[in-house]
Amino acid sequence: MKDVWRPAIAQMTGYTPGEQPRPGTPIIKLNTNENPYPPSPLALEVLRSLDSEWLRRYPTPYANDMRQAVSEVLAVPIEWIMVGNGSDDLLNVIIRAGAEPRRPVVYPTPTYVLYPTLAAMQGAEVVEIPYGDDLQLQIAPLVAAQGAVTLIASPNSPTAHVVSLADLRTLAAQVTGVLVIDEAYVDFADETALSLVQEFHHVIVVRTLSKGYSLAGLRLGFAIAHPDLLSGLFKVKDSYNVDAIACLVGAAAMRDQAYKDECIAKIKASRSQLAADLQQLNFKVWDSQTNFLLTQPRDQDAATLYQTLKDRQILVRHFNHSGLADKLRITVGTDAQNQQLIATLTQLRQPDCSRNGSIEGAS
Amino acid sequence: MKDVWRPAIAQMTGYTPGEQPRPGTPIIKLNTNENPYPPSPLALEVLRSLDSEWLRRYPTPYANDMRQAVSEVLAVPIEWIMVGNGSDDLLNVIIRAGAEPRRPVVYPTPTYVLYPTLAAMQGAEVVEIPYGDDLQLQIAPLVAAQGAVTLIASPNSPTAHVVSLADLRTLAAQVTGVLVIDEAYVDFADETALSLVQEFHHVIVVRTLSKGYSLAGLRLGFAIAHPDLLSGLFKVKDSYNVDAIACLVGAAAMRDQAYKDECIAKIKASRSQLAADLQQLNFKVWDSQTNFLLTQPRDQDAATLYQTLKDRQILVRHFNHSGLADKLRITVGTDAQNQQLIATLTQLRQPDCSRNGSIEGAS
Repeated sequence: MKDVWRPAIAQMTGYTPGEQPRPGTPIIKLNTNENPYPPSPLALEVLRSLDSEWLRRYPTPYANDMRQAVSEVLAVPIEWIMVGNGSDDLLNVIIRAGAEPRRPVVYPTPTYVLYPTLAAMQGAEVVEIPYGDDLQLQIAPLVAAQGAVTLIASPNSPTAHVVSLADLRTLAAQVTGVLVIDEAYVDFADETALSLVQEFHHVIVVRTLSKGYSLAGLRLGFAIAHPDLLSGLFKVKDSYNVDAIACLVGAAAMRDQAYKDECIAKIKASRSQLAADLQQLNFKVWDSQTNFLLTQPRDQDAATLYQTLKDRQILVRHFNHSGLADKLRITVGTDAQNQQLIATLTQLRQPDCSRNGSIEGAS
Repeated sequence: MKDVWRPAIAQMTGYTPGEQPRPGTPIIKLNTNENPYPPSPLALEVLRSLDSEWLRRYPTPYANDMRQAVSEVLAVPIEWIMVGNGSDDLLNVIIRAGAEPRRPVVYPTPTYVLYPTLAAMQGAEVVEIPYGDDLQLQIAPLVAAQGAVTLIASPNSPTAHVVSLADLRTLAAQVTGVLVIDEAYVDFADETALSLVQEFHHVIVVRTLSKGYSLAGLRLGFAIAHPDLLSGLFKVKDSYNVDAIACLVGAAAMRDQAYKDECIAKIKASRSQLAADLQQLNFKVWDSQTNFLLTQPRDQDAATLYQTLKDRQILVRHFNHSGLADKLRITVGTDAQNQQLIATLTQLRQPDCSRNGSIEGAS
């Protein structure tokens, strides 16, 4: 078939999402940073009791029930809130509104691997500014790149670190285009940059209910920015991008902060334990303000270990990218799941240890 | 705020969806062509019994459960099916993949008012070819416009007519770019153009579960085309565009063809009755192969009548566009809703009748 689509589409490769086995598959799934705990019981109650009228009719175009819940919880006026079909939808809308040829997309690396895909769809140039040693943000080159859209994931994936509010403020004061702060993992962090949307009206903060609220399957996220900035995005978003169920179930989850906080506290405690256990097994483990750990197995090949774990029904994430090929990103699961991972890793070391032992004995 | 978004976005106005009052609002809603009957009980059962694991985890990126259901019902291989967050999402993805400056979007008018909005987002030229008298498709000018994407809604809105399969085949054989046949209302029609996707590999048929299956609130649609044509669209669609609930509930609704057919039969019967009743009230009524009627009140101003009905809690659709300003699009409701509309219209005529009567008496 001759190429019927735009040249930019013909040239790009699509985004490859993490593997998603069906629920019920006997697997320990530590590859796409889902929350290991179920969503709020109050959210499930809304789902179970939903009147079928909500399905029969079109949803409200602005997901106002969800906006209301976000407004109450974060003390932000409704007009500053836009709801999306997952935060990916919002990132997509932002880049579509802002980027095209000669309106580049700029971000530090390594980071969320969706950004270049979204830029490619627009035929926009991409400027990647690698993080420095110790993961400092390289503010001057980020500013010099003059992005129409500059994206900072904070906390970042796969590095698990937070960019300091001071650095983000300095960047916000200097960038020319729109600055997106992608706070997908903020619920697991000690700091948020939300205050910057009031200081700078070209800053937009994007969040998701996929991680902190255990609702990845529902597709729900929101963006917060000055209404003048959002008005351009409301033109681009799909009229009915958020379905009625997501709107109502998400609003209930958002309002149940006590349940979310309880899950987050458990995950943070498990995170510390898992990090310590992995260090014991000779993994380098980076500090994490997220629900995953960036790790480097010091004495094993990461790609091989990824496959070995997968063969044993444990999925973690391996990125075949520059600077990441020797690392694994591991989602923090329940304590039982984490212990299973550690037990498997320990078991895998036995043959190596004895082989090493015999080699040593022979030397 | 200085304009931070792309010039094409700054220049466009957003799409204005139909009014969507909340369920529970005491209103007869005949403005956005929802099915008046609830979704399949089997679909609701899936919703009520959904395991929370489906919410906690990311959905499968390709909504395979839904693809499987479509494949079974329509006897199309899975590889020929793409699922979207409503058919609007699919139209959006298609136009985004195909259109940009110097790659125009072409369609006959009047038609679905979303098409020009989607083209504007891409900065693509729009070529509108008005339908002829008696709504014939103007094939030669449509072909001559050389669309990168040519869109034909069939059955069409707001005209309610079907474009004949013969005309669509002739068009498909001659257009240069991609031909989209938007079959949102096909469940209410006597004919489908689905067979054309096998004859022509640049033809794509788009359908929705919003109308025939009473699932407008769920956001679910699908496209059928040759896998080579879909491959470009899979790059553009959001990775997780369809949530896990929509995928499972939609699959159950799709499989319950008996229930859908029963609802459709009732709506078709009501459509005939409503058309006859409106004609009695001096409305011109166009033949309909959809779940709505295009009507022209011969002795009343359409915009005024729209507002008068709204004041009496009956919502119909008035388009303030060329050729449509003197018409109303009225969704076929339940018999009780339709009778309420007719009763209200009859009541509204009483003062006019008596005034006319007295004028006649005085002449």
